[in-house]
Amino acid sequence: MAAFFPASFEQLIDSFASLPGIGRKSAQRLAFHMLSLPGEEAESFANAVLEARRTVHTCPVCQNLTDAELCPVCASDNRDRSVICVVSEPRDVLSIERSREYRGLYHVLHGALSPMNHVGPDDLRIRELLERVAQGGVEEVIMATNPDTEGDATAMYISRLLQPFGVKVTRLGFGVPVGSNLEYADDATMLKALQGRREM
Amino acid sequence: MAAFFPASFEQLIDSFASLPGIGRKSAQRLAFHMLSLPGEEAESFANAVLEARRTVHTCPVCQNLTDAELCPVCASDNRDRSVICVVSEPRDVLSIERSREYRGLYHVLHGALSPMNHVGPDDLRIRELLERVAQGGVEEVIMATNPDTEGDATAMYISRLLQPFGVKVTRLGFGVPVGSNLEYADDATMLKALQGRREM
Repeated sequence: MAAFFPASFEQLIDSFASLPGIGRKSAQRLAFHMLSLPGEEAESFANAVLEARRTVHTCPVCQNLTDAELCPVCASDNRDRSVICVVSEPRDVLSIERSREYRGLYHVLHGALSPMNHVGPDDLRIRELLERVAQGGVEEVIMATNPDTEGDATAMYISRLLQPFGVKVTRLGFGVPVGSNLEYADDATMLKALQGRREM
Repeated sequence: MAAFFPASFEQLIDSFASLPGIGRKSAQRLAFHMLSLPGEEAESFANAVLEARRTVHTCPVCQNLTDAELCPVCASDNRDRSVICVVSEPRDVLSIERSREYRGLYHVLHGALSPMNHVGPDDLRIRELLERVAQGGVEEVIMATNPDTEGDATAMYISRLLQPFGVKVTRLGFGVPVGSNLEYADDATMLKALQGRREM
């Protein structure tokens, strides 16, 4: 029964099913969809994969994704080079840029410490961060990893490694999200909001 | 902000987001996953798409997907050529084959009549079915479209078109699924089960 569909079609289903969050049924549906597309569209899909693989790499300084020698932030003349904001994933850079508040540099770890998933310090771009700080000129490192167990542990771990360098290490402020309703804030968020209260 | 990720990476996100059932967030996650794969795996994914497009086409007889001249069922010497089972999608052939009961041929319509979605008779492979029946040798056509409004309408429409040919047209039996619990059968299924009752 396995060889019921043409082999190359089964292969395509397998390929989709190997992607995260895509089960066998979805993979089958996506494979059928791919065959129903006009030829050029299916080709341009395949080419998008190859092209992204070919051109995108990590910035040698901040480890964010880029297709240039340096990423736009590291290459810019308008950024404050004395501050580094440390995030887990490239998409987090996008979130912080959206606030239009931050003018410093970034450092992308590409993950968070997670003993459960066998992610240790050597799997993250921590060494590269220490090298940047060791080169001098950095005054503050903002730990902007996620406010969950793994993100907190990663922030804690890195802040200890940074102690010998004498730079200021801060953690992103956590609390009740803007525009939300206090009624729906969970206990942990409310605790952070109270701890992070400020004088008016 | 749109140009924040490298262009080829944005292109890859767009490609994934164009697939059915995949939103912007999932597309971003899939694109990141694609970049995290070893080079050969990303390439083999792209090649799976191209290869399936290149080799897979519809069987000229039954319209099922195949990479050979005829599909395995139409090419087989062990099938009863006097019965044609009409299904909506290639995956339905798989479901029926799994029962190991059916030994006839198939006809894949590639859809069901759906005025809401602008799918009319000309969008389905109905003409090809009529041509097969017109060639003679067919004694029974089993309508195995889905037991929903569109499937029922399609079955009804085709059965009328087949009347002049004098072949027996049957509809798949519907009722309470084997191994299920009567308690959980919905009203429509129970109605079909009662209507389809047999003497013991």
